[in-house]
This record gives sequence, C-alpha cells and structure tokens, in this order.
Amino acid sequence: MTHAGTASTVGILGGGQLARMMVLAGLPLGLRFALLDPAPDACAGQAAPLRVAAWDDADALARFADGIDLATFDFENVPAASLDLLAARVPAHPGRDALATAQDRLVEKTRFNALGIPTPGFMAVDDRAGLAAAARSLGLPAILKTRRFGYDGKGQFRLRGEADLDAAWAALGDQAASVGLILEAFVPFRRELSVVAVRARSGEFAAWPITENWHVDGVLSASLAPAEVSPGQEAEAIGHARRLAESLGYVGVFALELFDAGERLLANEMAPRVHNSGHWTIEGARTSQFENHLRAVLGWPLGDTGARGVSCLLNFLGRMPDAGTALAVPGLHLHDYGKAPRAGRKVGHATLCASSPAELADRLEHAGRALDRAAQVAPVLARLRHAP
Amino acid sequence: MTHAGTASTVGILGGGQLARMMVLAGLPLGLRFALLDPAPDACAGQAAPLRVAAWDDADALARFADGIDLATFDFENVPAASLDLLAARVPAHPGRDALATAQDRLVEKTRFNALGIPTPGFMAVDDRAGLAAAARSLGLPAILKTRRFGYDGKGQFRLRGEADLDAAWAALGDQAASVGLILEAFVPFRRELSVVAVRARSGEFAAWPITENWHVDGVLSASLAPAEVSPGQEAEAIGHARRLAESLGYVGVFALELFDAGERLLANEMAPRVHNSGHWTIEGARTSQFENHLRAVLGWPLGDTGARGVSCLLNFLGRMPDAGTALAVPGLHLHDYGKAPRAGRKVGHATLCASSPAELADRLEHAGRALDRAAQVAPVLARLRHAP
Ligand SMILES: Nc1ncnc2c1ncn2[C@@H]1O[C@H](COP(=O)(O)OP(=O)(O)OP(=O)(O)O)[C@@H](O)[C@H]1O
Ligand SMILES: Nc1ncnc2c1ncn2[C@@H]1O[C@H](COP(=O)(O)OP(=O)(O)OP(=O)(O)O)[C@@H](O)[C@H]1O
Repeated sequence: MTHAGTASTVGILGGGQLARMMVLAGLPLGLRFALLDPAPDACAGQAAPLRVAAWDDADALARFADGIDLATFDFENVPAASLDLLAARVPAHPGRDALATAQDRLVEKTRFNALGIPTPGFMAVDDRAGLAAAARSLGLPAILKTRRFGYDGKGQFRLRGEADLDAAWAALGDQAASVGLILEAFVPFRRELSVVAVRARSGEFAAWPITENWHVDGVLSASLAPAEVSPGQEAEAIGHARRLAESLGYVGVFALELFDAGERLLANEMAPRVHNSGHWTIEGARTSQFENHLRAVLGWPLGDTGARGVSCLLNFLGRMPDAGTALAVPGLHLHDYGKAPRAGRKVGHATLCASSPAELADRLEHAGRALDRAAQVAPVLARLRHAP
Repeated sequence: MTHAGTASTVGILGGGQLARMMVLAGLPLGLRFALLDPAPDACAGQAAPLRVAAWDDADALARFADGIDLATFDFENVPAASLDLLAARVPAHPGRDALATAQDRLVEKTRFNALGIPTPGFMAVDDRAGLAAAARSLGLPAILKTRRFGYDGKGQFRLRGEADLDAAWAALGDQAASVGLILEAFVPFRRELSVVAVRARSGEFAAWPITENWHVDGVLSASLAPAEVSPGQEAEAIGHARRLAESLGYVGVFALELFDAGERLLANEMAPRVHNSGHWTIEGARTSQFENHLRAVLGWPLGDTGARGVSCLLNFLGRMPDAGTALAVPGLHLHDYGKAPRAGRKVGHATLCASSPAELADRLEHAGRALDRAAQVAPVLARLRHAP
C-alpha cells in the first residue's frame, strides 16, 4: 500500500477520544487516518474518516485493511480475532500477545510475577466454593473482579469481610463461566502511580516521568506529573515497564498502573495503548504519548519524553465546563472530545501547566473555584502543598 | 445557529495549511469546522469537511453560511464581497475594513502613516511616466510592487538604478490598470522582524514575543523567537500593532511585518490572519496563534502568549524531508501539511525548540546537517552565536 512519496494511512480500531487525540498528533506528521468503530457518533470521526462496523464484521475489517498501511487500536477490549484479521494483511501494533495478556487479569498478573514484577496477591475464582477458598487464602479485605472486559472500575466488588461473600457472588458470580473471575488482596496503598512508556520497532525504549493518579469510583479523576518519587522508586517503576515491554516484544505506548505500598511498588494492570494518565504529555512533555505512539508504530525514532514544568490533568465526566470560564484559568489547556453529554461519560479533560509546584497549586486552586471543582482538585493541592 | 450545549461550527474561507492548523487547534476546544475552497485537494480538507466552490459562487456561500455559526478566513486575498455575503448571515472576523486595508498596499501604507506608524517611502504608480516620477522622488534602489494580490514576493520588481525602469515596466506595467502599482523605497534594513498579535471581541489585546525573520526570494525561510530586541524596540513594535488593531476594530490574530532600519522600525505590511512567522507558537509559546485566533473570534478570553524557551522555524518548500530523518533531530517538531510536492510550494515546516540560545544553535546545526539545509540554518546560527 505504501508508495514512495505518498503518506502512510494509519488504521485505528476504535474511534474514541484516544483515537481522536492520536489523529490530532498524527496529521502534523503527514499521516492519514482511517477509523473503525461500531458507534456512528464515535468522536474521532470528527477528525478522520470513520467506517461504522461491528468488531467481528470480517468483510468490513477486510475492506478497512485494504485502505490502510498499518493498524493500531485505541481500545484494549477489541477482539483479538479482529486484530488477527488485520495483522494478516498489514503490520499491526501493539501485537496480539500484548493484547491477549492485557485482556485477562489472571494471565496479566501471572505474567507480571513471572517477570519479577510484584502484584497484589490474587487467585482465580471458578465457583462459590473457590471464592471462599480464595478469601481464606488471601485474607480480607479483597476485591472480586471479572478477569476480562473490566474498565473504569466496572465489574468489581469489594469484600470487607466474610459477610460480603454472598453479596459479591450474587453481584458477579454469573460471570464466572463467561469472562472469569479473580480475587485480589486489597492493597492499603499510599498512592497510585503509573508509568507511561513507549517501545519502538527498533527496540528503543523511553518512559515519561512517573505520574501520580487519583481515582473516584474506580475512574481516573486527576493526575499529577512529574510525581515526587525517589530515584530508586523511579528506577524500579521504569524497570518493571521496560521488562514487561521487552518480554512482550511490545511496539507502541502503554501504561503500567502501580500501587505504592510503601515498601515496594505492586503492579495493578497494564493498558496496551495510550492512557488517560498520559494525557498531560500533550502540553506537559516535549513529545506527547500520542505522537510517540505513532513514531513507534511507524518505525520512526522516538521523541524526547522529558517534562516541561509540572502538569495536572483533571478529567471531565458527564459534561464539559463552560469553555469561556475554563479558558480564563491561567495555564489551563482544554480538551473537549466532542461527545454528547451523558452521566459518567469521559467527555474531556483539562491540563494545567505551571513552571513550579507552587505555581501549579495556585492555578489548581483557581481552577477549583472557577469550575466549581474544589473536591476534585483537593487531593492534588494537598500533595503539592504538603509533599510527603 | 448556536444552541446551548451544542458545539459551535467555525466556517473558514480557505482550506490551506493555515486553516488546517486552525482546525487542529480548535478540535480540542470542542469546535466543529467547515471549509470553503476552490481547490478540491485543499489540505485542510484532510481534517474537516470541505466545500469546493469558487470564491464568488454566491449560492455556495449561502449554503456554507447555513451550516456555520461564525466565519473567518485563512487567506487575505479572498474577495471582500464573499466575506460580505457571509457577514450578512453570521458574525465574521476579522472584519471587512481590515481585509480591505490589507489587500491594497497603497491603502495599507497610507493608513500606517496616518496612525503614526512609519513605513518605507512609497508612491502610487499609474503609468510609465508616474514610475519615472516616483523613482525620482523616492530615489533608487526601489521596489515596484502590485498593490493587490501579491504574496510570497510575487508581483515585485527590484530597481537598482534608472537603467531598470524599462524592465520593471515591462514586467509589471500591464497590471497598472487591473491591480494597481506602488513604488517603495528600498530599505537597507538590518533585519526583518514581525509582531504576531491578537485582539479579542472584548478589546483584550496580546502580542507574542517579537520574531526575527529571514526571507529567500521573497518567501519566509526561517524565523527565530523570541528575537533579541531592546525593551524600547519591543514596546515600539507592539505599540504599532496595538494602534493598528484598535483603529481597525480588529478581532483575531494578525501579523505586522517590520524592517529594523537601525534608528526606527518601518512597517512593511500587515497580514490579517494567522501568519507563517507565528508558527513557532504551536510548541514555543504557552498558547499558539491558532488557538488564540479561535478564542478571539469566539469571544473567549485570550491565552498566555509567553514563550516557552527559544524556537526556530524552518520552512519546507517543494517537498518534505524524510520524516524519520527529521524526527531524529533533538527538539524538532514536524509539520507536514499533507500537500503534494511542487516546486516552491510551502509543504510544511519544522520548529526546533530549546531551553537556551546555545542549545538551539546546537540543534539547528544538527538539523542543518541531517536535513542537508546548512544554507537555510546559517543566518539563524550566525545570529544565535554572534548576537548583534
Ligand atoms: N487490589 C486492589 N487494592 C486496592 N485498590 C484497588 C485494587 N484493585 C483496584 N483498586 C482500586 O480500583 C481502581 C480501579 O481498579 P482497576 O484498575 O483494576 O480497574 P479498571 O476497571 O481496569 O480501571 P481502569 O482500566 O480505568 O484503570 C484502582 O485504580 C484502585 O484505586
Ligand atoms: N521596501 C523594501 N525594502 C527592502 N526590502 C523589501 C522591501 N519590500 C519588500 N522587501 C523584501 O521582500 C520581502 C517580501 O516583500 P513583501 O512582504 O512586500 O511581499 P509579499 O509578497 O507580501 O510577501 P509575504 O506576504 O509572503 O510577506 C520582504 O520580506 C523583504 O525581504
């Protein structure tokens, strides 16, 4: 498909905000895009041609493959078989091994441990008796999760004590046969961190500064980068990410979510794609995660992942704040994904940039007031003003 | 057209690289776009819906107006009558007065002088005798230019001495009746500067740091920002820009091109739009000219125009360098406009960013070698390494 002197067309499975931001980063590189998504109003369709089709529509996938030079995805629950169909026709990155690993929490955590990357204790749960046995073995509190298709805290049940076993089974037991279940020991973490990293086709590897993340109801609410971490902790986190990427022969950007448990870092999960906790890199790093993902999959050299100042991401769920109000906040960069408002839906984010933690704190406080989001900015403010 | 809760659609007359970069800046603000351009392959059409129509197709303009909430343009030679047609239906910025002023070098320079903004000496030229009279009055060397429709140094003839009068008339005389001619005294300038500035609907005004520009054959080749200027010179340049914007009731981004003649700054021309010498603001400033243009025309508050480090723009004419080679240069940001290669055509640019002039010089030297553009980077390197 690629002819000397013509642009490469990147096909993206999935047309959500991640694809949208990838398109915005890739057009300046001279790339063309094509999207495939079952939703006719997929928001990346505002920036690139969208083919509306079911993930398992083999005909549509074949026609899609005919129009692209390489394939990637913005959504890790895309069926591995769909990626296989594309990969038979064009180069596809990240590969199937990474996708399959990330799609199953049991496979994923087993792989982490095999690579020497510690995780919370975990056990597969096949039936009600298995749940009781796992709870005894791991201890409580613990979290029962679906092995597959969980995202944004969906498909999870927290068990405080023995008394919750029945409720947990009632909530998720019927999914044991279809998507599988896993029980994980509850980690009383000090904070949540993520490493967003990238590996190129050449094997070149780079990581952005570690990010600290705050979740509300299992959904990312705010991120701060660079997080204040010791050199030892940074090396440990990036070492885990690198070992993982190399073992998977990974190509592209990915995120590794970590719990800082005081003594050590425990891996929670990997996302085999650009990640919400890396959105700050658009303004806050020398090269964004979206540009470096494209550089990686295209076989180009990676860009500098160094930070420019300090940044804080605030997610907008449900609906966007008024643009004029938001844009009056100093240092605020607005990202409206062009989605219709809907309760709980990620519709956009803002990144606040500043040259020092103190300046960022002042700007965040301003944003909290102006946008009526004092609760959302509070934990980040506390971290910036009374560092650990 | 605007309904509470729905996105505004910005209509752009012109679908070239300036429209394209405006779309890329505006999608994250939640805006939608529609473009009108006579060229079916206008490069902004890769990022937003394009209506192909002649500038004077009144029907097409009316249908275009029906689908947009406000209008702007990326091309100052758009007929004022077309803008009038849109302005009768939706708000249009910049306004007709600014467009008409910028479209005629004689009107423009007369206005500059009326506002106390000095220019090179100039005289209208209506016929061969008028050319001789103007040459006597202004002295030679001088430049004969078409009053209207000149761009990138097109429609100009340099007269070194009396002997060139016939050749100048032979080259441009037949345009005296159609687009008009003007003779300008040749300014032996020390350097060329530009102010890129923005004025909002509220009257709020902001300017980016002054940029130094190098032209080759009348076309911008490289820009350096922030330029090294004295506080007095900076205030003078920005004062000129501000007076001009206020007198025109200007809304949006514009550029004022200046000759640094040692004693004072002489205004060459204004561009009533985002400008090639402001492209470095995408990475090199806290808010880009494209985002601030949209903020201004939408009635939103302006963003911070401060610089982030030092930046150098390099224009690519004819064809793009190899992307993989360019992206290996540290600090280089690539902008491929998605155009077919053609001799002399502006097909893209790179912005090199660094934290100090010395670092920028090293990166530029690297870029000059890697991209085989030693001659293009040489004057910028000389400026960075032996400041005036
Ligand atoms: N074992 C655990 N101990 C303590 N807290 C946990 C544990 N597992 C998950 N959590 C909490 O729940 C959040 C969401 O969990 P997890 O990342 O497994 O869900 P998800 O649905 O895959 O979310 P996403 O894909 O959006 O990151 C975590 O960020 C953390 O705050
Ligand atoms: N009066 C002058 N004295 C000296 N040099 C001049 C003069 N006028 C123009 N030039 C040179 O020619 C270049 C292009 O001139 P001008 O800006 O008038 O052309 P243009 O076609 O409008 O270009 P553009 O719109 O791309 O800036 C200037 O940047 C400058 O280098």
